Amino acid sequence: MISTGKFITVEGTEGVGKSTNIELIKTLLQQAGIELVVTREPGGTPLAEELRNVLLANRDENFDPLAELLVVFAARAQHINQVIKPALAAGKWVLSDRFTDATFAYQGKGRGLPIQAILQLEQMVQQGLQPDATFLLDIDVQVGLERARERGELDRFENEHITFFEKVRAGYHERVAATPERFMVINAGQSLEAVQQDVTLAVEKLLA
Amino acid sequence: MISTGKFITVEGTEGVGKSTNIELIKTLLQQAGIELVVTREPGGTPLAEELRNVLLANRDENFDPLAELLVVFAARAQHINQVIKPALAAGKWVLSDRFTDATFAYQGKGRGLPIQAILQLEQMVQQGLQPDATFLLDIDVQVGLERARERGELDRFENEHITFFEKVRAGYHERVAATPERFMVINAGQSLEAVQQDVTLAVEKLLA
Repeated sequence: MISTGKFITVEGTEGVGKSTNIELIKTLLQQAGIELVVTREPGGTPLAEELRNVLLANRDENFDPLAELLVVFAARAQHINQVIKPALAAGKWVLSDRFTDATFAYQGKGRGLPIQAILQLEQMVQQGLQPDATFLLDIDVQVGLERARERGELDRFENEHITFFEKVRAGYHERVAATPERFMVINAGQSLEAVQQDVTLAVEKLLA
Repeated sequence: MISTGKFITVEGTEGVGKSTNIELIKTLLQQAGIELVVTREPGGTPLAEELRNVLLANRDENFDPLAELLVVFAARAQHINQVIKPALAAGKWVLSDRFTDATFAYQGKGRGLPIQAILQLEQMVQQGLQPDATFLLDIDVQVGLERARERGELDRFENEHITFFEKVRAGYHERVAATPERFMVINAGQSLEAVQQDVTLAVEKLLA
């Protein structure tokens, strides 16, 4: 039997440089000979990307927070069953831009939804599946938002007030406090060079 | 304080004549002076209708049954909080083309999802909200499908095999067996005149 691959996630608030660092992690893992599936949430399959579009679209209608949470987990169920589990079972590694830590941070802490509901859905959808390791790119919220907003058109989340992102960041830190052994917290407020050095060291530890 | 309105749902498999009978129920209730919101599931708000489109679209990608269930309840959360609860609180009646009985029948019995998951989501999303009365339009599945398929383009559900709809119909009858006092079961295989007579009698009972 082929051994199962590792499931790596990358988390952070807006403008922390997730894309750049995922590119780096991908390159480092591939250089180490690892067969890798790079994916993202919400999304990762055409259908889950349809749900992502529903989540991110700006519209007049207020998006009920519980409905938002359920769409997030619907996209996740699709992603897990169509992409993540088959890849891991085939011995590949999976590198995902966001996973359930984001749900605890954005929908739990940011929107104020009851943690109990998130835990129930996590159990229902993931049935024990958890990331083996998680990179948290951490930055001062104001600095991150300024970076993100330079990118142009803002989606429904990016349009949130700074207090929302302060809560999200606090939510991420609660997740780190709960399972510190899983997290590699990277100070994303440093120079690009210093960030990439830290990410490289973390990947080396992961491979050791 | 204004008294709360009644929440009426209409259920049935494909081709039972839901639209025609909803039109009749609406007319009868309005003639009785009732202020009524007529709506449907999945859907009932622009956002929930976006989710309906995701649910009904034919596509190559297999729709994970649990993901389907979560999209159904996401649309329901939006519908309840934006439409149903505000209308009932304002003393209006709500008449909905389908509600959670359909989820037990289609996703539970039809797709074979665990009832426990549906019960958990029902509790999370409805928090006790249940229809006051439900019309189940009941017909031989083969007859219903032939009628439905005369309407043209088939959606992802209408494209299911007859054995799926046999399970759905059985699922509806299990729901009737569990709470018979809530259901008005109408034999939709009769002539239109006879069906409408039965529906009219049931509405009169509801108003009595």
